[in-house]
Parts: sequence; C-alpha cells; structure tokens
Amino acid sequence: MSRDKMFGDNSFSSPCNTLGFLQKNNSLEEKGRLAGQKNLLSCDNSDRDARFRRTETDFSNLFARDLLPAKNGEEPTMQFLLEVVDILTNYVKKTFDRSTKVLDFHHPHQLLEGIEGFNLELSDQPESLEQILVDCRDTLKYGVRTGHPRFFNQLSSGLDIIGLAGEWLTSTANTNMFTYEIAPVFVLMEQLTLKKMREMIGWPNGEGDGLFSPGGAISNMYSVMIARYKYFPEVKTKGMSAAPRLVLFTSEHSHYSIKKAGAALGFGTDNVILLSTDERGRVIPADLEAKILDAKQKGYVPLFVNATAGSTVYGAFDPINEIADICEKYNLWLHVDGAWGGGLLMSRKHRHKLNGIERANSVTWNPHKMMGVPLQCSAILVREKGILAGCNSMCAGYLFQPDKQYDVTYDTGDKAIQCGRHVDIFKFWLMWKAKVSRVDRRVHTCWLKKTEKHLQANKNLHGFPQHTNVCFWYIPPSLRGMPDGDERREKLHRVAPKIKAMMMESGTTMVGYQPQGNKVNFFRMVVSNPSVTQSDIDFLIDEIERLAHDL
Amino acid sequence: MSRDKMFGDNSFSSPCNTLGFLQKNNSLEEKGRLAGQKNLLSCDNSDRDARFRRTETDFSNLFARDLLPAKNGEEPTMQFLLEVVDILTNYVKKTFDRSTKVLDFHHPHQLLEGIEGFNLELSDQPESLEQILVDCRDTLKYGVRTGHPRFFNQLSSGLDIIGLAGEWLTSTANTNMFTYEIAPVFVLMEQLTLKKMREMIGWPNGEGDGLFSPGGAISNMYSVMIARYKYFPEVKTKGMSAAPRLVLFTSEHSHYSIKKAGAALGFGTDNVILLSTDERGRVIPADLEAKILDAKQKGYVPLFVNATAGSTVYGAFDPINEIADICEKYNLWLHVDGAWGGGLLMSRKHRHKLNGIERANSVTWNPHKMMGVPLQCSAILVREKGILAGCNSMCAGYLFQPDKQYDVTYDTGDKAIQCGRHVDIFKFWLMWKAKVSRVDRRVHTCWLKKTEKHLQANKNLHGFPQHTNVCFWYIPPSLRGMPDGDERREKLHRVAPKIKAMMMESGTTMVGYQPQGNKVNFFRMVVSNPSVTQSDIDFLIDEIERLAHDL
Repeated sequence: MSRDKMFGDNSFSSPCNTLGFLQKNNSLEEKGRLAGQKNLLSCDNSDRDARFRRTETDFSNLFARDLLPAKNGEEPTMQFLLEVVDILTNYVKKTFDRSTKVLDFHHPHQLLEGIEGFNLELSDQPESLEQILVDCRDTLKYGVRTGHPRFFNQLSSGLDIIGLAGEWLTSTANTNMFTYEIAPVFVLMEQLTLKKMREMIGWPNGEGDGLFSPGGAISNMYSVMIARYKYFPEVKTKGMSAAPRLVLFTSEHSHYSIKKAGAALGFGTDNVILLSTDERGRVIPADLEAKILDAKQKGYVPLFVNATAGSTVYGAFDPINEIADICEKYNLWLHVDGAWGGGLLMSRKHRHKLNGIERANSVTWNPHKMMGVPLQCSAILVREKGILAGCNSMCAGYLFQPDKQYDVTYDTGDKAIQCGRHVDIFKFWLMWKAKVSRVDRRVHTCWLKKTEKHLQANKNLHGFPQHTNVCFWYIPPSLRGMPDGDERREKLHRVAPKIKAMMMESGTTMVGYQPQGNKVNFFRMVVSNPSVTQSDIDFLIDEIERLAHDL
Repeated sequence: MSRDKMFGDNSFSSPCNTLGFLQKNNSLEEKGRLAGQKNLLSCDNSDRDARFRRTETDFSNLFARDLLPAKNGEEPTMQFLLEVVDILTNYVKKTFDRSTKVLDFHHPHQLLEGIEGFNLELSDQPESLEQILVDCRDTLKYGVRTGHPRFFNQLSSGLDIIGLAGEWLTSTANTNMFTYEIAPVFVLMEQLTLKKMREMIGWPNGEGDGLFSPGGAISNMYSVMIARYKYFPEVKTKGMSAAPRLVLFTSEHSHYSIKKAGAALGFGTDNVILLSTDERGRVIPADLEAKILDAKQKGYVPLFVNATAGSTVYGAFDPINEIADICEKYNLWLHVDGAWGGGLLMSRKHRHKLNGIERANSVTWNPHKMMGVPLQCSAILVREKGILAGCNSMCAGYLFQPDKQYDVTYDTGDKAIQCGRHVDIFKFWLMWKAKVSRVDRRVHTCWLKKTEKHLQANKNLHGFPQHTNVCFWYIPPSLRGMPDGDERREKLHRVAPKIKAMMMESGTTMVGYQPQGNKVNFFRMVVSNPSVTQSDIDFLIDEIERLAHDL
C-alpha cells in the first residue's frame, strides 16, 4: 500500500488524474484557467477582500461533475453557489416588496405541460449548471411567497432573516441529531433550548424531557404514545391487547392530528371522543367530565385529554386549569397542544391564556408557527424525565454504544420514533440569541385589535376574531337583503370559494376558508408574520370587496 | 379606513415610522446612510453588476431588528446574508480539504462551560449581528464535518453541492407540502420523482403511490400501517382490538425501526418476530416459513414481512424473490426496506441485488443515504394507489377543501401522518436534473473492491466486506499471539472503543463500531461519499494502526 501522503491532497493517485502536473497549492486563477472557464475578475481590490471576488463564469459548459469534489472544482463551486445566492437574495427582496404578487397561479396541468421552458420532467441527460440555475429561478417564480406580507393563508408565514441564515447553515452542516458524536453543538443547543421552553411552561427548574420533531402532528402523536406508556407500559412489548379499551378526549375544534394519532397507534378513531365547545370554540369542562363518566360506565378506560391552546381555525384557548382539575380527579394524562398558541408563553401580556399549562404532563409547541421560525420546528415537551426513552428506546448497538468515551446520556436518538433526525434546533437557537425580546414583542402586536376594528367598521363583514385568527364572512351585494334561511346559507357557502379562486388567479393576496360545524364556508385570516401592517389587512379586505362586488 | 395606497409600501402609516420624510424609492446608499451604517463600496464596476456590490458593514451596532422587514432593512439584510454565505462557503471549501480535521472534539461539559467565548446559553438580551455571525462560525467550528472525505461514520455522508444549493433554496421558499395551493411546484416535483422511483422499482408504468417522509424509520412505520389497513381496515376506527393477534417478521439484522413501529402502532415488540440470517447477514427464507407456520399454529395472524435491501451494519441484501414467494403463498404484505440499498436501483451493474423488489407491496428508499442527497430525504413507495389516503385521511376541512378551483387530488397532505410536511423533494429533483448519469456511476464505484483488497493485504485486519459496508476488527500487537477464547474476546471487545476514543480526540478521521450478535465490537466503515478515494481508505487504516500500536 502506498501511504506516503498523510493528510495530503490525494487526488494525485486517482486514476482519473489527467493533469498530473498540477501543484496542490496552485492559485484559484490557475485552477480556473486549467478547468477551461473564463474568469473576469470584477473587483480590483480583491487582495483586500478575496471573499467576494466576483467572476463572470460561463455555466453553459459546466456540469455538476465540474463542482467539488472534482479537481479544480473549487472555483466553479464558489461561483455556482454565489449565483444561487444571488437568485435567493433577489427572491428575499421581492418577498418583502408589496409591489410583487404573492403568487402567479397555474393549474397543475399547465405546470406539468411546461411553461416558458420550465420542464419539471426528469430526463436521462444531465443538465448544464446554467440550466440548473434557470430551474432554480423558475421554481421560485411559480411558487408561493409565504413570506409576503399579504399572505394570510397559513399559521406558518413570514420569512425571518436570522432563521433563514440558520437554515442555510444547517443544510451546510448536513448532520443528524441522533448522537452527540456527530452533532455535538446541535445536541447541546437542543437540550438548552428545551430547558428554556420548559421553564416558560412553568415546570420546576425547567426539569423534564423533550425533543424537536418533524411537526406538530408527530409531537401530538408522541404525547399519546407516552401517556399510554405511563399507564400501560406493557403495551410496548405486548401490544394493545395488553390494555383495556382506552379512550382519548379532545375538542371538536382540536387539530385532526389527535385523531390521526388515535388511528395510527391502534386506539381507533372511535375511541377518540370529541368534546363540545362554547360559542368561541373552547372546550366545555362539564362536557369533558360527563364524557369521562360515560366512558367509564361503558367499561372503557379514559387515558388522555388534549387541551388546545390556540385552535387551528378559531384560535381558541381551552380552559387548561379547569381541564387539569378533571384530569387530576380521574388520574388522566393532560396534554396541551400549543402548536399554534404556545408562542404566547413568551409574552407577559398574553401568557395568561395558557394559565394552567404548568399542570400538563406534555406540551406541543411549534416555534415554526407564531414565532416565525422557518419550517420545520416543533417541540414535544414532557414533564417526566426518562419517559420518552422508556417508551421508545430499542438500544440499537450500532448507534448507541454504551462504551463511548463521552457521557452517552447526550445521545438522544433512542428517545425518538425516528432514527435519523433533521437538525431543527439551530435556526431557533440563533433567532433566540438574536432577538429574544423581539419574539416577546411580536406576540404583543395587536393584530386582533386591528381586525376587530375592521369587523366593526365594515357592515358587510360578520366575524368572530380571537387570538390572531380572524374568521369572517363577506356578504356580497346579492345576499345583503336576503332573509336568513337554507337558500341564503347555500349561496353564502359558495361565496368564499369563488372569491378565493379569483384571488388565486389575481395573485395579490391569499387567505384561507373552510366550513366548521354548522357554519358555512367562512374566511380565516391568520397573522403570524411581523411584516404585516394595518394597511396589509386593509388591502385584504379591499381585495375581497373588489373581487366580490358582482357576486 | 385609509386605503389610499394600493400595492404601495405601507410603512408610512406604521406607528413606529420615525423617518417620515423617506421616499419609497430612495436609493440603497441613502437607506444605508439613514440606517447609520458605514458603506465602503469595494467594487468599482458596481453598475455593471450590482448584485455583488460588497460593502464593509459594521455589524456590531446592528441587530436583528435592523433587518427586513425593518424600514431601510434591505441593505443590511443583503450584507448580513452575504456574510453568512461567506462563512458557509469557507466551510464548504474546508470540508473538501484533506488538510483540515474532521472534528475538533470536546466533551459536553467543555462545550457547555463555553470555549473561547462560544456561549451556548440563551440570554435575555439580544445579541448584535456581529455576535450572531461569530456564533455561526463557532457552531461550524465545533461541529463534525460529515462531508469530509475521511468521515466514514454514518450511512449518510458527503456534501453534494447541487443538493446544498437545493436545500438553500428550499429554506428560502419556506413552504409546506400539504397542499398544491401553497407548494404547487414542489408537489408536482414530488409526484414526478416518486413515479420515476416506482418505475425503477419495476411497478407497471410506475403506477402506485408514495410520499417523502422525515426519514427511513417513519417510512418503515408507514409500511406497517398500510399493511394493517389493507388487511384490517377496521383498525383505523375500532383500534387493534378489532384485529386478531397480528405478527410482523423481520431480520435479526434489520433496522430497529421495524421494532419501533411495532411498539408505537400497538402490535408490541413481542409480535415482531426476528428471522435468522446466514453468515453474511441475509435472511434464511426457510426460517421465515418455519416461523410463519409456528405463529399460525399458535393462533396468531402473520401480516407483514420486511426484507432488508442493504442492512445497516453488514450491508446485507435479503433474497427478495424467495421471500416474495413465501409472502404470496401465505398472503402477507411484503415490504422492502431499501433505505440504504435502494440507491442501487439506479445502477445497471448492481441492481440485481434487489431482484424481486417489483413484487413488494411497499418500499422504503432514502436518497439521503447512498445517493448523497442532503438530510432529510426518504421516500415510502406503495404499489397500490389510494391506500395511503385510505389509511390516513381525516379530511380536515380547513386544509383540504373539496370546493377549490383546482384539481384537489394534488393536495397530498391527507395521505400523511404529518400535517405540515417539510419540502424534502427539491434538492433531490435538482440533483437528478443535474447528474442523473453520475448518480448511476456513483453506485458503480468499487469501494467494495478497494476495501476487500485492504483486508486481504493487511494481516492484522479481519473482516467481512459487503456492499460498501466493510466490517472488520483491528488486532492490536498484544492480542496477535493470543489463542482464541473468552479472554481474547473480552480484550478485543475493548479495542475498537479505545481506538475510536483516540480517533475522536485526534479528529483526523471517523469510523463507527458496534458489537452484533456473538461478534465483539468491530469497526464498520461505510462509504457513501463520492469524494472518498483509495488514499482516504488507506488513511483510515493507517490511522487505526498509528493509534493502536501500543494497545
């Protein structure tokens, strides 16, 4: 074996080395020349600051194979990445520019057919880097600007610059959360951040456990799994047949992921009992108690109650303390789904809406919603230490060797239902470092007041605002004189989809709609983007009126 | 309501507007001056190419609040992002530079105490952007270079430049896969790519279904869920009590996620039957049949068989055709876990190792492993169309409105157990576009041959290479003369952890170790990074010898 070059550049011994005369330390310019690209240095003071030497590279003759790890690949790699960054920073600028549209809508068949040369099909021939850059531009062009201040369509919106930088770094580090060994810094950041979050929940000394998971639905699924493990640990080995018929309780307004968890984990959706709510969408505690008693009478075993802190549609907050009283009385696991509303724990002014959360056994909290962290960033937090590992660990020897040289309690992977786990913590940690006080202020912002004023001022809007969710109907001219009844309801039901369709085509703003219970289709405007101003809300209302005036 | 500025910059009406004299179209320089930063244009020809105008910005007095959407925030935002990119591109360069270390190891308590001012703790005071940039540098400095050509520690390694660009774009687009409405391009890319993958599996016309999920463990969990739904659909509503005692079969060498799925979904790990393997780690089909018959005799109901294509430790390929014969005979769901080995489907030369995969009902395939796509990128592929939706849909009205203006079959979210779903497709689609033929060549690369040669040439290495996993013991001088027996086994068991500890401290390379079955701790070298050359493998072996010479 030839091993004469410890730590050296080993490309010399590669069989595909056709430029054997190259020296290891040849300059970038030389490399560029040898690789056959034309470099036009555009900055004269490149000595002082070589970092952003801008060369004009012809990418039409370059391919992925010319990038690192290719020999002489450094220069084209850097130029290619700078071109990509140019595309991205232009996109960022436009996202904040109200003179751009939120989207340029096309139907699926139109995009599939290919628009102006944008070909989504995968061919068998590699494309040039020039075409790859065009693909990147087109991908952004035909997408939706979720960071635009007039995008009100989802609970997650906005484009946080610090979070964005954090996510770029995360992808560059390209590692995995399962062991301290390969993610030492990220594992510790996760641990410290989860502790801070538990302190904000109010658990003594921030003790407990937790994980970042790939979204609120998975976080909620964890809560059901660990509740089952707490009361019926033998289910882990014996399956559900080792337990009696277990039932879960959650609001009729709660997120559908509780039902999904019931189906997936083997409880069955019939055993997810939906609780009635008051006119604002909050669980009625007496209904919970009645349904617990009813289940017990039937011989079922109540296991778990989910209280929602910020429901998806109405933004309702269930009364956690009253629900906790009932859970204590009947010895049930209390989970708080704060995927949406959890961010209010950062706000001195609004955190009272989650009073009682410190009595929960587990909490879901998605910083990627109200706190504006880029997708995905969701935490499952657990009061009892060790129970996540107890529930999920399988002690795989190839990852979690007990005889490592460091403290292996930092290897968190065996607590998860995942094996590989994406690094979701860094962007959040970085945002916290950069602006903890702004996060605090952010949730203080009075979107609710602004929109309430709207509803009061505009006689054609009828709605029920709460949290930053504002739900409303727009009553078009043709329905304004019509008496209430089935005909009017049916017609009103069709109004929101019609307006939404026109809105998508026009691309100027986006807001969601849905029916709920006995309410026909209504709009749900949500604000979680700090770029949004009063005039953006004005704009949305104006747009609805403009689009719907002849409905 | 004042609505006189349609589409205009609405910052004028903001209560925090203290610079009311600003014009909307003031130049960037003016904005910069007003924001109080010093700009030193470093490029003279900035008119021709304004994109990379490099200014020297003092970030010590700038904070996150000065970035977009702040008024005058565009210039500092662009400069801040370019600084971040500078940090990242330097990291990329070093990753490919063999003269840098793979890691700079510190124990958890050392990092927690803070090294050279790197403070992981979250304070209550926002940091300046200068400090944020320092945090970014430090985060990378104390991390592990998983893309380094001498990182052999995990199945996922390497740093693909096209994939990296794709991931940067994905984070900038910051959207969610659940509806066509907010991710039109990504949803179509996913659909087209999944179809290509199904074609490669060999399902007729690439028909079927699938999703990208947050990792192989979740993909495997999907396979168990849909198998259960196929045979016992009533479990979705009634729970596991509606089914008989169901059993799952998987290799003793298979990934632990099958057992995790058994525990989570309510089967119980006792009902996950482990199959015996031959000396190379491949399932013995006769053992499968014997265990099926045994289970049936006990009154249990065999449901599901997992065949592994590329096992985690040995890289073994179960004989899929023979297993498929048995599954057909007994009417069982056949899943192929190709998380690791699925990439070989791209290789004309190696795809025979997966012969029979076209007979599978479902397949897990992680492009983030052998194909070098950045983390996370895992697909669950299903032969029967509609079954994913049947199993998981809950028809949430607020997301999946049936009365949208476009073809809502493109809204894929209700097929998933997640609600929000990260965009994992774009980087893979872009890599495919850029170098489909290279992906093909990549898996042809004969790492196996290279390492086999090593083992033959070095009398102190004893191993069993297969696929690109090479498992081996290093026999240190003190054990070379010792006869086989318990004492030698115990001593040999402690060798790999000792070497690994020294290797981590020295930071020059990384390789994993583990025991398996009756085999004491051995190294598992895995290659999935195309940067790796023969000399890097030489280097690893040399390092082991260097570190272990006095063991």
